[in-house]
Amino acid sequence: MLGVCYYPEHWPESWWEDDARRMREVGISFVRIAEFAWSRIEPAPGRFDLDWLDRAVDLLHRHGLKVVMCTPTATPPKWLMDLHPDIAPMDAEGRVRGFGSRRHYTFSSEVYFDESRRIVEIIAKRYGAHPGVVGWQTDNEYGCHDTVLSYSPVDRTAFQAWLRRRYQSPDRLDEAWGNVFWSMETPSFDAVALPVGAVTETSPAARLEYRRFASEQVVAYDRMQVEIIRKHSPGRFVTHNFMGFFTEFDHWPFGEHLDLASWDSYPIGFAERFPFSEPEHARWAETSHPDIAPFHHDLYRGVGRGRWWVMEQQPGPVNWAPWNPVPKPGQIRLFTWEALAHGAEVVSYFRWRQAPFGQEQMHAGLNRPDRTLSPGGEEASTVGRELATIGALPASGKAPVALVFDYEACWILEIQPQGKDFDYRELVFRWYEAIRRFGLDVDIVPPGADLAAYRAVVVPTLPYASEAAVAAFEASNAPILFGPRTGSKTRHYAIPEGLPPGPLASLIPVRVTQVSSLRPGLTKPVEGAVAGLAMRWIDHVEIKDAKARVLSEVVDPAYRIPAVIAGPRGWYVTTWPDADLLTGTMRGFLEAAGLELMDLPEAIRIRRRGALTFAFNYGPQTYRVPAPEDAVFLLGARELPAQGVACWR
Amino acid sequence: MLGVCYYPEHWPESWWEDDARRMREVGISFVRIAEFAWSRIEPAPGRFDLDWLDRAVDLLHRHGLKVVMCTPTATPPKWLMDLHPDIAPMDAEGRVRGFGSRRHYTFSSEVYFDESRRIVEIIAKRYGAHPGVVGWQTDNEYGCHDTVLSYSPVDRTAFQAWLRRRYQSPDRLDEAWGNVFWSMETPSFDAVALPVGAVTETSPAARLEYRRFASEQVVAYDRMQVEIIRKHSPGRFVTHNFMGFFTEFDHWPFGEHLDLASWDSYPIGFAERFPFSEPEHARWAETSHPDIAPFHHDLYRGVGRGRWWVMEQQPGPVNWAPWNPVPKPGQIRLFTWEALAHGAEVVSYFRWRQAPFGQEQMHAGLNRPDRTLSPGGEEASTVGRELATIGALPASGKAPVALVFDYEACWILEIQPQGKDFDYRELVFRWYEAIRRFGLDVDIVPPGADLAAYRAVVVPTLPYASEAAVAAFEASNAPILFGPRTGSKTRHYAIPEGLPPGPLASLIPVRVTQVSSLRPGLTKPVEGAVAGLAMRWIDHVEIKDAKARVLSEVVDPAYRIPAVIAGPRGWYVTTWPDADLLTGTMRGFLEAAGLELMDLPEAIRIRRRGALTFAFNYGPQTYRVPAPEDAVFLLGARELPAQGVACWR
Amino acid sequence: MLGVCYYPEHWPESWWEDDARRMREVGISFVRIAEFAWSRIEPAPGRFDLDWLDRAVDLLHRHGLKVVMCTPTATPPKWLMDLHPDIAPMDAEGRVRGFGSRRHYTFSSEVYFDESRRIVEIIAKRYGAHPGVVGWQTDNEYGCHDTVLSYSPVDRTAFQAWLRRRYQSPDRLDEAWGNVFWSMETPSFDAVALPVGAVTETSPAARLEYRRFASEQVVAYDRMQVEIIRKHSPGRFVTHNFMGFFTEFDHWPFGEHLDLASWDSYPIGFAERFPFSEPEHARWAETSHPDIAPFHHDLYRGVGRGRWWVMEQQPGPVNWAPWNPVPKPGQIRLFTWEALAHGAEVVSYFRWRQAPFGQEQMHAGLNRPDRTLSPGGEEASTVGRELATIGALPASGKAPVALVFDYEACWILEIQPQGKDFDYRELVFRWYEAIRRFGLDVDIVPPGADLAAYRAVVVPTLPYASEAAVAAFEASNAPILFGPRTGSKTRHYAIPEGLPPGPLASLIPVRVTQVSSLRPGLTKPVEGAVAGLAMRWIDHVEIKDAKARVLSEVVDPAYRIPAVIAGPRGWYVTTWPDADLLTGTMRGFLEAAGLELMDLPEAIRIRRRGALTFAFNYGPQTYRVPAPEDAVFLLGARELPAQGVACWR
Repeated sequence: MLGVCYYPEHWPESWWEDDARRMREVGISFVRIAEFAWSRIEPAPGRFDLDWLDRAVDLLHRHGLKVVMCTPTATPPKWLMDLHPDIAPMDAEGRVRGFGSRRHYTFSSEVYFDESRRIVEIIAKRYGAHPGVVGWQTDNEYGCHDTVLSYSPVDRTAFQAWLRRRYQSPDRLDEAWGNVFWSMETPSFDAVALPVGAVTETSPAARLEYRRFASEQVVAYDRMQVEIIRKHSPGRFVTHNFMGFFTEFDHWPFGEHLDLASWDSYPIGFAERFPFSEPEHARWAETSHPDIAPFHHDLYRGVGRGRWWVMEQQPGPVNWAPWNPVPKPGQIRLFTWEALAHGAEVVSYFRWRQAPFGQEQMHAGLNRPDRTLSPGGEEASTVGRELATIGALPASGKAPVALVFDYEACWILEIQPQGKDFDYRELVFRWYEAIRRFGLDVDIVPPGADLAAYRAVVVPTLPYASEAAVAAFEASNAPILFGPRTGSKTRHYAIPEGLPPGPLASLIPVRVTQVSSLRPGLTKPVEGAVAGLAMRWIDHVEIKDAKARVLSEVVDPAYRIPAVIAGPRGWYVTTWPDADLLTGTMRGFLEAAGLELMDLPEAIRIRRRGALTFAFNYGPQTYRVPAPEDAVFLLGARELPAQGVACWR
Repeated sequence: MLGVCYYPEHWPESWWEDDARRMREVGISFVRIAEFAWSRIEPAPGRFDLDWLDRAVDLLHRHGLKVVMCTPTATPPKWLMDLHPDIAPMDAEGRVRGFGSRRHYTFSSEVYFDESRRIVEIIAKRYGAHPGVVGWQTDNEYGCHDTVLSYSPVDRTAFQAWLRRRYQSPDRLDEAWGNVFWSMETPSFDAVALPVGAVTETSPAARLEYRRFASEQVVAYDRMQVEIIRKHSPGRFVTHNFMGFFTEFDHWPFGEHLDLASWDSYPIGFAERFPFSEPEHARWAETSHPDIAPFHHDLYRGVGRGRWWVMEQQPGPVNWAPWNPVPKPGQIRLFTWEALAHGAEVVSYFRWRQAPFGQEQMHAGLNRPDRTLSPGGEEASTVGRELATIGALPASGKAPVALVFDYEACWILEIQPQGKDFDYRELVFRWYEAIRRFGLDVDIVPPGADLAAYRAVVVPTLPYASEAAVAAFEASNAPILFGPRTGSKTRHYAIPEGLPPGPLASLIPVRVTQVSSLRPGLTKPVEGAVAGLAMRWIDHVEIKDAKARVLSEVVDPAYRIPAVIAGPRGWYVTTWPDADLLTGTMRGFLEAAGLELMDLPEAIRIRRRGALTFAFNYGPQTYRVPAPEDAVFLLGARELPAQGVACWR
Repeated sequence: MLGVCYYPEHWPESWWEDDARRMREVGISFVRIAEFAWSRIEPAPGRFDLDWLDRAVDLLHRHGLKVVMCTPTATPPKWLMDLHPDIAPMDAEGRVRGFGSRRHYTFSSEVYFDESRRIVEIIAKRYGAHPGVVGWQTDNEYGCHDTVLSYSPVDRTAFQAWLRRRYQSPDRLDEAWGNVFWSMETPSFDAVALPVGAVTETSPAARLEYRRFASEQVVAYDRMQVEIIRKHSPGRFVTHNFMGFFTEFDHWPFGEHLDLASWDSYPIGFAERFPFSEPEHARWAETSHPDIAPFHHDLYRGVGRGRWWVMEQQPGPVNWAPWNPVPKPGQIRLFTWEALAHGAEVVSYFRWRQAPFGQEQMHAGLNRPDRTLSPGGEEASTVGRELATIGALPASGKAPVALVFDYEACWILEIQPQGKDFDYRELVFRWYEAIRRFGLDVDIVPPGADLAAYRAVVVPTLPYASEAAVAAFEASNAPILFGPRTGSKTRHYAIPEGLPPGPLASLIPVRVTQVSSLRPGLTKPVEGAVAGLAMRWIDHVEIKDAKARVLSEVVDPAYRIPAVIAGPRGWYVTTWPDADLLTGTMRGFLEAAGLELMDLPEAIRIRRRGALTFAFNYGPQTYRVPAPEDAVFLLGARELPAQGVACWR
């Protein structure tokens, strides 16, 4: 199903009717509204104007469009900021991040918590039972523009209270964090400073706890909104629109209080931001890389426990990347079908019409500012017609491979990377890409998830493995492939007793005795059953299990170190593998797990949804899809052209 | 005529006499003084010491030197800053930019406005009628070191007042700026925040207005000084010394209250700062690029409505670029003659003698610190002798080609570049270079200027075209070549109704339906009557005029887009052209305009002044100038050596 | 002799006994303790807990280990910072650099001066006469993390007082600094602002004085501590542990009040930070460059007037460089012997055991966190055994070559580099490397040092030469090789009268009339007796002494400039020489000085200590050492393997 983001407050009311009618023509069923409209809803303290919104909702409903109503808390209005200036977040340098754009509040502000409760209650009461309202989105893109972490006095007070609850006494905190180091011991909870603004690096344990605290603040803030909505709007779903490559808060516990997850998919903008090589950047600039959107589809399907939407789908060039090219013709249709193939219930475009004013005026919409369909709008219409022909899509099943993704892992590796380019998101993305190049579907799961259904489990790295994570791995029947640095930290950011992999010693057949980070330009050959180069990182290990087989070794003139080890319960890779070593290792591991592999070209991806198989072509060359002889094509044909989509049963 | 900048306060009074005598020997007629001398003029509040300055002026006058007196407002003394700390500007991060160098005031400070009025009045009264004083310079290099834009509370108050005058009601402001976007609506003018310090990008409309406000503050501040001077110093000219590649305020309205414009020409330092490629940087490091000084000569000739000086001419290595090489021998003479060829009345060197102390001690002068002529001083002496031989130069006539230069265009493209490397100054410079490589003289004019005298008009881009600008284009008899993004914005930073080129639709035969910015490394071939590459930017257009001819197209495997379109009234280029495409397009356009073109080597330029033709050689190879058989050479000869100057009639 | 840094407060007391026993097994004699233990020594204001430290000292002493006791002032505890927040330094942007790591105090805080006096007195009284305590270290790594320069109100007051003492009247200050420039004159000492936070560059004279002031504050602070210790701990040595490539304060006057110098040698981390080319970085990443540790050994031998330690020796990978590779096997042993070869009395490793918690948890120790020797620990044990076999090492004699190193030179060139890449430390390092590639030992000496004992003196540059420095050069019997920019500044940061080399005109046979800085990619060939390229910088000179021989010239198509000049008393190099020109010039100079030269491969170095000759191999290839036929090898053999050490008599 298709949806769209619409801002009635941006347009003359006389246009609304035509807009609604044309939405239906495009094949749109859902309309998200009102997430930035606070200044129109409450133009002055306590003075409300909801009539215009009533009329908009009624009109959309009259046209058979289903409304996803939003809370407007992403944009507190100026009068509110002037009444309570300490709502504003503060950056690590002590600068207020004030009014003038959006997200100018810290999650730790009690005043803002109360103000949010007030406005959410008003909206929820007003529209909770409206027959046109089918669901809710809270706020908008929590954390966008680095707003999870704030460092104001308000944040400090909240963090101190959080610590007091967790640790009860300063001594326990000092002990847990190792504060004896550099005389960092704290006289009292009131004396705890935020872990910024010091002469040099602050305590990694403190920093990790601050990340956990900040993440919990986001979840608690959202839960407050969700509870109000549930009270006043029974039977409607509640979601939030998450972002791409965004790891500032832990989405796994957040997802637990939602009915479904949704995310904002801007694959071409994200490609510009990803640390690709220059040739890769040029290659994917107008299409995105074929794993960027899918990675997030698979992630948010996990976060939503199976139910998820694309809430904002890129409809053309955007405005916020350093460069914003026009997508290749067909690419918007491809993105839409790709999301559906990965199990999306709805793909909702951002936005109905390009705004000619404001910060995002260079962001395309399904319509141009002159009320004419844009190329992206034409492609959406095509999908609308195709969907009408095909009808309901089957349910999305479990994938054969589970990839474990952990937000804390990202924080841990940001806090002390030890090698400047050890980037968690890059590592995970490359491992995901390697699996999908073999034509396999992937489920992305949190540490601790039930792994029973999977044929193979991949853990690119997991520095801290909780008890639940260890138990889940131990309960897995499938083989597990672990990457470097797994098990290298305790909960309180210390090296585990007995050295890494600490609590995973029963699964990973090595002990890590030293670690080496390698600058760009410094690599070491890996030789053996799988070959390639060791880059960026090497765990120097001793083999601790006589049954483990060393498949390959890092070769230095002065020594050799195991690179890939196949243990009886888990495989381990000691290095950041280059593309050859990664592909070879993954092939070996997945074949050992009994999976059947394809070898897809770099621009082609396959994805299954129930009995349907989809193929997507991000590249310029035609590709012959590996459909069986008797396949029935619902979309496309055996020859898959540039930017083509095929679907067969 | 030659001039020099002199600081009597820097030297023992016993040296002055010798300095003046030797200035005359070098051929100097004008001496600029006193622009940083406030602390010597008024050592303590209300305590004045002007005797030394009286003596200096008298002495220079006695030696037949004409004095250009300055106001000392670029350097408010410490006692004044301590009395009124809020004179200091504040940067966008909220940091005070205090005492210790120069320009430590914000133009919005009413206190400083009054203090400036006071000191200017004192100087103007004292020297206004002195027979040795022939003209005035206000302050020094307004805006240097990023001082046009300041963000202090004083600025905020001034901006609020300016907005109140412009908009009368907050609603009108909200409407004009599109503040409904992201709930940015303002409760009152007092609530308007400066468009900085927000969580992410602030309103582009607000930012553009802040640029306009700040620019007007500079002009108003200068006008105050000029009015005082005119009152007390009748018959003397008033000027200000502008800078190179400087666009922070709009020079066109500023020029209107001056008698003549002047600028500070440091071609080698500017070359270091320009975004040249590395090979270009190496090629021009010791000479500058042959269009850097000329571009500004042509610009400030326009700002001064025909009358202009070089107030500060680079005399050797400077101190402020990242690297400061010694110029190639002959280059200082070349710069001097080049300025004269472009119509300068006076070329005044900065400075008479290198100061052995202070921030600029590594800046060369005509003299070394040991009171001996530097190489640059020797070259100035050569020019002095040459000028004495040649006598008065003829008036500078209209050029055949007008290039439209717009300060607001620069601001608009800085505020939302949409493609990171879409740099207005770079674009204009490349288009100017292309014209001059054909041996043509260029006038640089503001949008709205009368274009009647020109054979061809070039507009590299003009995102916002005012009514006056549109009218002037429509009144032009000459063909006009427009570059990409022309007409893409309204006055209040919005996309025009009906899409770009908005109000220029009568002249530009396209409608822009989408735009694409391309990262470095991503280019598309352009094929057709003129060929090359499309880089950085592509306007995707529909042709709106059946009489328009598409000369070339951008070629993508998936589509073709017009690249160069010759319409009945104007040509349009949809892309940032590479050198080949730019040269080809410009050649086609200028030939179509009926102009006769030369093909000059990259290091050679030609310029006419009245009946005289000048040639300049920036390169290492000798060049045979295209002088007629019967040419009479006033300078040089037919064979133009490295760093050579030729002039023939 | 070997030592180690130990933190009893980091470990269960039950481990101490085993630690002490195993230290002895490794061959360790000295143990440094307590430098970060303030919060354990004084957990709350005036409440002391020294019992644990008593027990630790007693236990170490009982095991025959000699204790180096430290003052804990590098880490003022939280309660102290909360009582006196203005102890914290402030950065140049006005941000407080607060609690949370270490070194969070400014040397100008009188409160902290008093608090330091108090705690030092307590420690010194308690342990001054303990038989196990043989020496003292004050504080830890003064200046680490950019903490010499602070810009708080406290610093401003202290600087004003310092200026008042130096200049007596503001007029003298204005005159000395050239404050007439830009009206920078000061009404009073109270009005002097710190030379930061201005609109553009502040006075170079003011900045240089601020550097001198800040340096003197460090020395005075340390002297306070030393005097207290001497009073209470007679017969014990006092030292401080200096750092690598660290020039923020002047170490020469500091060294005068110490008994011996010591420094913290992290050669592999330092290699990562040095501005090597990318190929050099890759080549030396796992070994360090073979002159990085030696340069500092020779420097701190000078600072300690012959007596010095390595207080912290890198034992494996560290945590603080962008990348931290595992050292090549054998490299830790090599570093240890290399320090001893250069004359170290003790090499003390940092640290006994890797801490599993805190900021430095990724920093290796001699032991892994699991109480097992690390590879570095094994190598230290090897050295321990070798030392036991060889016995006492002979005294280190004078080297044939003196290299003059000046901290002020570094400040002067940082304040106004004039060419962005004119880096003092890089220049000196390259000149040092060139000398050592000829197999020569080097003494590093301050300007003004007695040069009588040397056969050759090398001065890579010395912008300001004090009277003492000039006198010492004039008294030298050895020839002196001066580099570019020598003598180019006065004490108060001005160009000397009569132009550079100012007071060195009697020794340097040129006058510098212009200077040129060249961007990367712009070089000029040098031709003549020695050849190569001129890079980065060229002094344009006139020859002032008829007896001077121009050995080589910089060749430009338009001119030639002397590049290397051999004067009767000194040689002068006018440019930053590339490797060829530097090697050729140095060879010519050293041969002219009558020295016999070897040509060592890039990875091999030789060093003598008394009658012993050592050779070190940083590279992967075996090298045949140039030992005489009848040499007796105490370490290694004639064939020196990768990472090998040889020592013969």
